[in-house]
Amino acid sequence: MCREGILFVLSGPSGAGKGTVLQEVLTRLDNIAVSVSVTTRAPRAGEIDGLHYHFRTHNEFAQMIENGEFLEYVTKFKNRYGTPKSQVEQLLASGKDVILEIETNGATQVRKVFPRAVLIFVTPTNPDELGKRLDKRGSETAESKALRLKIAQRELKCIKYYSYIAINDDLAECTNTTEAIIRAERCRLSRNPELKDKYVNYLKNKQPKE
Amino acid sequence: MCREGILFVLSGPSGAGKGTVLQEVLTRLDNIAVSVSVTTRAPRAGEIDGLHYHFRTHNEFAQMIENGEFLEYVTKFKNRYGTPKSQVEQLLASGKDVILEIETNGATQVRKVFPRAVLIFVTPTNPDELGKRLDKRGSETAESKALRLKIAQRELKCIKYYSYIAINDDLAECTNTTEAIIRAERCRLSRNPELKDKYVNYLKNKQPKE
Repeated sequence: MCREGILFVLSGPSGAGKGTVLQEVLTRLDNIAVSVSVTTRAPRAGEIDGLHYHFRTHNEFAQMIENGEFLEYVTKFKNRYGTPKSQVEQLLASGKDVILEIETNGATQVRKVFPRAVLIFVTPTNPDELGKRLDKRGSETAESKALRLKIAQRELKCIKYYSYIAINDDLAECTNTTEAIIRAERCRLSRNPELKDKYVNYLKNKQPKE
Repeated sequence: MCREGILFVLSGPSGAGKGTVLQEVLTRLDNIAVSVSVTTRAPRAGEIDGLHYHFRTHNEFAQMIENGEFLEYVTKFKNRYGTPKSQVEQLLASGKDVILEIETNGATQVRKVFPRAVLIFVTPTNPDELGKRLDKRGSETAESKALRLKIAQRELKCIKYYSYIAINDDLAECTNTTEAIIRAERCRLSRNPELKDKYVNYLKNKQPKE
């Protein structure tokens, strides 16, 4: 129904199960594509360049940043991950919706470039549960725990930039919610100006037939 | 998840099948109530006062208008129909969502009182189809056709006040769309400020446990 594709961003605190929700949602909806990320990390067994990721060296990645080729990029455990801007722009221009599964700070970068992007905060259960999970990781060092807490605090603070929350207490329920958000956004009249005009103008100058 | 209920309005051109969509949606969702309308028309067989409608005389209806008791009201074929404001307000305050199935000019009245109400334009197929339907009613007089066209023109013009469009080509699809809109609106972070604060503040002052 949309002329121009809609950009959806699935994001939220680590361990929220965003990837699983994304895969489930993709099996249920048409006309939506995932953007293939660029990464500097080594391919794992079975991963194909251009399908799972675009695998690039650190130098190549740095060059892409230099060229302004990224919609967003983040560094995570010494590896870098980024979303190529041109790919997303081409898909949207062709009328296809695009969904990105990225980190919260990547999501805030996307929002600056695409203010009409729909940011969905996928979060594991409630914040209490999140706190408990952080405490439970008994095998970690104090430094590692402190770092993890710091990251979680930063991630949660980003919630203010999001339009929707999809609580992942239950995978099926969270998938339903995410699917509903995508379906609803597609039917927003503000995203379908031509359709709106069509209805308003259609009968405007019509005369009754005898 | 919401503290305060959300007001949904199902509305659109006559013959769009709003009533059927409403009944279908109600079987699928919890925590949503329909407001019982007040009308001056005579009860039909099996209709119960207070359940299907609040049946009132023309004088009583006029008095309710006088008292400012209506959220919206319209006159249709010499009968009047209105939504009592207090009922809707009480339901919303108790955290229940409310759904109204009303005429387009009623919907624009609701929007003035509840700017955060979600207006869903339910429409039969596309405008071309709507035009054909108007022409096809062969048994009507020219006057009656002209009046019907005028009403349809007025109804379609109201689309600009709506947030969403739910095209009723197919009842199941239109019900899915309406259900998705309700589910999505419930997860909007702007409608859940306390939830948002809870996430932001939860880990704020937390210290890592040893």
